[in-house]
Amino acid sequence: MTTLDSKDHYATLINTFTVEPERAEQLLEVLSHATEETMRHLPGFVSANLHVSLDRKHVANYAQWKSRADFEAMLKNPLAKGHMTEAAAIATSFTPILYELRHVHAGAP
Amino acid sequence: MTTLDSKDHYATLINTFTVEPERAEQLLEVLSHATEETMRHLPGFVSANLHVSLDRKHVANYAQWKSRADFEAMLKNPLAKGHMTEAAAIATSFTPILYELRHVHAGAP
Repeated sequence: MTTLDSKDHYATLINTFTVEPERAEQLLEVLSHATEETMRHLPGFVSANLHVSLDRKHVANYAQWKSRADFEAMLKNPLAKGHMTEAAAIATSFTPILYELRHVHAGAP
Repeated sequence: MTTLDSKDHYATLINTFTVEPERAEQLLEVLSHATEETMRHLPGFVSANLHVSLDRKHVANYAQWKSRADFEAMLKNPLAKGHMTEAAAIATSFTPILYELRHVHAGAP
């Protein structure tokens, strides 16, 4: 389970992939495998949360890192780079954006 | 606090706004106000989580609804429509995509 709390001050990456719908499952598998094999063992990794759009045209990774420095160190890691190249080859495009979480509004449980 | 768990089977909206950096704070305020005043009182609302990109060029709302039907009913609500029109007028563009959460990978606590 992943928790979102602005007090954690994590760096949040939302990476939105555009993909041919018939390749969405393959992309999810590659991202899931990359997370288990490599990303989760890197310093500052908190979580990766993989989503597929209802129309299968997009895959989104909502990923939390303890700091922006940890995220940027991952980008330079050769194993992580290899996984990212593999994912990019399956997708038609991708847009990674680094955020801070500002407001959490939760409804009544 | 918001939790992400694929077993909840929520409908997840990730709405990515592109914004002039000097208007990012205004957009966050409008979205936060809309959530408190209207969205959180609608059937099926679970959470809204407002993010601002480190370069201030994007605002993202990661929102959970109990079902796609609840989300689509919100889209037709006149008060919600008014808030969305107000947010759209501040942003230069926005891309709402509806997802299912497939995999959660959490690191060691």
